Amino acid sequence: MEKVANLAKRRGFLFGGSDIYGGLQGTYDYGHYGALLKQRIKDAWLKANVQQMDNMVALDASILMHPKVWEASGHTANFSDALVDDRISKKRYRADHLIEEQLGMKVEGLSNEDLTKIFEENEIKTPEGKQADWTDVRSFNLMFKTHAGPIADDDAAIYLRPETAQGIFVDYKEVQATTRKKLPFGIAQIGKAFRNEITPGKFIFRLREFEQMEIEFFCKPDESKQWHEWWQKERMRWYVDVLGIDKKKLKLRPHTKDELSHYSAGTSDIDYEFPFGFSELEGIANRTDFDLKQHQEVSGKDLQYFDDASGKSFLPHVIEPSCGADRIVFAVLCDAYTEEPDEKGDVRTVLKLKPSIAPISAAILPLMKKPELTKLAGKVRDDLATDFMLDYDVTGSIGKRYRRQDEIGTPLCCTVDFDSLEDQAVTVRERDSQKQERVKIVELKDYLADKLS
Amino acid sequence: MEKVANLAKRRGFLFGGSDIYGGLQGTYDYGHYGALLKQRIKDAWLKANVQQMDNMVALDASILMHPKVWEASGHTANFSDALVDDRISKKRYRADHLIEEQLGMKVEGLSNEDLTKIFEENEIKTPEGKQADWTDVRSFNLMFKTHAGPIADDDAAIYLRPETAQGIFVDYKEVQATTRKKLPFGIAQIGKAFRNEITPGKFIFRLREFEQMEIEFFCKPDESKQWHEWWQKERMRWYVDVLGIDKKKLKLRPHTKDELSHYSAGTSDIDYEFPFGFSELEGIANRTDFDLKQHQEVSGKDLQYFDDASGKSFLPHVIEPSCGADRIVFAVLCDAYTEEPDEKGDVRTVLKLKPSIAPISAAILPLMKKPELTKLAGKVRDDLATDFMLDYDVTGSIGKRYRRQDEIGTPLCCTVDFDSLEDQAVTVRERDSQKQERVKIVELKDYLADKLS
Repeated sequence: MEKVANLAKRRGFLFGGSDIYGGLQGTYDYGHYGALLKQRIKDAWLKANVQQMDNMVALDASILMHPKVWEASGHTANFSDALVDDRISKKRYRADHLIEEQLGMKVEGLSNEDLTKIFEENEIKTPEGKQADWTDVRSFNLMFKTHAGPIADDDAAIYLRPETAQGIFVDYKEVQATTRKKLPFGIAQIGKAFRNEITPGKFIFRLREFEQMEIEFFCKPDESKQWHEWWQKERMRWYVDVLGIDKKKLKLRPHTKDELSHYSAGTSDIDYEFPFGFSELEGIANRTDFDLKQHQEVSGKDLQYFDDASGKSFLPHVIEPSCGADRIVFAVLCDAYTEEPDEKGDVRTVLKLKPSIAPISAAILPLMKKPELTKLAGKVRDDLATDFMLDYDVTGSIGKRYRRQDEIGTPLCCTVDFDSLEDQAVTVRERDSQKQERVKIVELKDYLADKLS
Repeated sequence: MEKVANLAKRRGFLFGGSDIYGGLQGTYDYGHYGALLKQRIKDAWLKANVQQMDNMVALDASILMHPKVWEASGHTANFSDALVDDRISKKRYRADHLIEEQLGMKVEGLSNEDLTKIFEENEIKTPEGKQADWTDVRSFNLMFKTHAGPIADDDAAIYLRPETAQGIFVDYKEVQATTRKKLPFGIAQIGKAFRNEITPGKFIFRLREFEQMEIEFFCKPDESKQWHEWWQKERMRWYVDVLGIDKKKLKLRPHTKDELSHYSAGTSDIDYEFPFGFSELEGIANRTDFDLKQHQEVSGKDLQYFDDASGKSFLPHVIEPSCGADRIVFAVLCDAYTEEPDEKGDVRTVLKLKPSIAPISAAILPLMKKPELTKLAGKVRDDLATDFMLDYDVTGSIGKRYRRQDEIGTPLCCTVDFDSLEDQAVTVRERDSQKQERVKIVELKDYLADKLS
């Protein structure tokens, strides 16, 4: 993990948020290459799940939502971690983490009272191994709270959404009516969500500010099982076929009864083998009509779907494939990260990204910083920039510049040399094989398009 | 404005945020067509300002930033509105709005004491025309405040960014180092920002949650004037050439000395003629080295740029072209909205969007809901969906469906009729001219690509 994180920082994919001020825990900023990579992944998700699916539409709802939304969804009451305070150090910890780490017990589903009892009956220390004087365990809500309007009292309290999903449920009838979709159909949305995690960490795996890509797929109740199966297959396919992630590193893992959420009639996670073990990339849940029922009750609005064929109205059931864009960036970086011996016996570090998601499609490199070369290289770049995301780099030896592009994951490097002035051709070097080919400048656009598709 | 807002709601471009709960003031959700339109505008901005410019790179920084950022930028101390309370109604108002509306005075730049005096010396009523008992005028900070970590005290207070710009300043050295850019170069960023406006309104013109597209362009101090000029021309060009906005509705307006921000050595707004008058789409400011100097001082980090050629280090000056994606969506909708008489003397409503930014590129319409037609139409759609964003619509008369696509701004409608079964061709109807042309299905992809480019 260190290696991937170091490369990401060194090459400007990711920086700690607010770095010059010592950082802000649980936030990361995407630099040039990281922002482009993330954008490619988001584009690929939207293309597969909206453009290429006839029964799917897009939505972009606000981060700030009416507080009743979170009452209905259960977040106000239940979206919390169990915390415990140490009266000696005045520090606060997650109770479940302390118990799991020090006693090796599984505590999922236990109440605060149960957890408090475990603290009373066992010798539990601080993570630093110090004696502690524990308070009772109590719930800490993970939603970030703020206030809208000029008066910061309880009436004005609102929350940053802890998931994008509820925006889809709240808007589903308006979206359905305006796009005239019939069951089964789905709504796809990408957007930021926020959770005040007590222990963010593992690079960009658990952040306080993160980006979700969520689908809510609405179907007839008796078809929900079959659509749940369908989406599990489809989402696995996307990771392998579209992102090019190694199939052997992915695992579909059905939730056990213990870990199943109260609203779910079945959930499977797609786990990726991160450096710290298999962990969740995506959850695919059968949420039944839980959310729509809740919103219908709390809002008093009829959220039923009217079925032309049967003449009946009912609440659709919902399949939710929900993934985190940051985690996918992380998985893609891990999966692409390769060290291999080079010709001199040194190590060559390469990001073997699928060309279609690489941040930079091709680098344009004048062999040396000579006006005749940079002039021609500049012309090549200008001709291609309408169609491709390029890097133009003139500083350092050509070998070093190749290595830099390898680390960014650029599939093709086009070198403009002195021969280019004569033959109007460039040397194209392929990232993985390092094979070189001479390509006429007039044919370069088609050549790149072909190699990158 | 009502007409545009109604169309936007009716056709699913925009809904009020949290509608089923009575709405959340100052928030809007983008439905299917709105989300696609906004995405096209963002893509067009990134393409023009990153992909097609060699000296520009991308960034995607966090919304949550270290509170010191806002101390350095001046937002903690100064980013506020002057408010006044009415002791009778217990309501709070913007002091400047009341004075401007009722006394017709310009109050920009006046202190709270000055404003309080105006309230004391004049008869100012509530906006409802009622007698009021005013408090002193005081400042209200527009940043949304929340808390990070398990303890919600002052030490943990953080803010939702009120502008994306500061993320660029804070990260500029890391971005510059990792992308190896030399002056002049710029960083472009798209992202959400939040302002707790007391009176959001005018549809999506002034929102509490909105999306900015900001560039900070770093240059040598003595070149800042020339780059300021250059960016004003370039940004005007973008609105006209790329978005297709009517040149006559755009105006470049230099700020007067009174309205110039304290950090600015010159600002020009690009104003668009909205239904309520010319108003700001974009501001292009010469921010000098104000921000970098502030961050350097408060963070204690050296933010100087080292210039190879001269061997000197200095703080670059910065040109900031900053626009709001929501306002641009609004302007594009206003600009495209057209009512014209149809053949029957009724009104045809058309969104005459530039084809390259229309949310839907082409609609595939089976003439009737007959299996042989829907089967062929489905095949046509599947073949084109890899390359184009499509709508597929089978319900209602073909005339009504054309009108629906006119209102969405779809440039081309492809109708599959009974002849299509024989001649393997479709009728393509062009939105603005309503001219129809018969096109072979095998040639449709190239035909669409040509018409849409």
